[in-house]
Amino acid sequence: MTSSALQIALSHHRAWTGKDLTAAMTYLADDVVLDAPAGRLTGIQAYREFLRPFAEQFLVRAELISAFGDDTTALLMYDTETIPAASAPAAECVTVRDGKIVHNRFIFDRLPFEEFRRRQAGAGA
Amino acid sequence: MTSSALQIALSHHRAWTGKDLTAAMTYLADDVVLDAPAGRLTGIQAYREFLRPFAEQFLVRAELISAFGDDTTALLMYDTETIPAASAPAAECVTVRDGKIVHNRFIFDRLPFEEFRRRQAGAGA
Repeated sequence: MTSSALQIALSHHRAWTGKDLTAAMTYLADDVVLDAPAGRLTGIQAYREFLRPFAEQFLVRAELISAFGDDTTALLMYDTETIPAASAPAAECVTVRDGKIVHNRFIFDRLPFEEFRRRQAGAGA
Repeated sequence: MTSSALQIALSHHRAWTGKDLTAAMTYLADDVVLDAPAGRLTGIQAYREFLRPFAEQFLVRAELISAFGDDTTALLMYDTETIPAASAPAAECVTVRDGKIVHNRFIFDRLPFEEFRRRQAGAGA
């Protein structure tokens, strides 16, 4: 269960799910590439803006389901309790090079978040 | 990369993404529990009905991104090319007992499938 890539991925995970985005960003390469459900984002700032609303507005708590890794790759699955959804699990496949996360394939179900956004928009109309 | 749980999870994966649902079902326990984005399903028949529209109607091809496992757990991430979405990645955390899959936590983004369903409904109206 322990490996360099896994340790870095888990440290990053614990930081951002602990809502410390500044600490979480220290594990990312400057030119990190994030393949998220809505498309590809490049660079630390874009990555931070992707995580920020989730970490700061929606996330109640996160719980690791499973995590594996080897020298270069870590694969994580975790559940999150969020304001829009009681269970909003996610999976990340993280590639590490020279001690930094250079790529992340990030999977989650956008549907409950989209439905929440529509309800909020409807309530505000 | 090789382990009992991983071998079983990959054999199951190859079978259903190869559209052979009958072969895929042979890797499941009769009372398999599937935690899918829409909720919990129990039993082989419910599992098959969950996979069937995806495998038979939508799936063009699947490509493994990463897979790890130990004696009891396998964690898979893969991308799929589908009719509704050119890239529809998924992750599965599979628990194996006595050589059969007894639990699967299955994550994918339902949004492109929901949007496709709406477009189809709109086109048919």
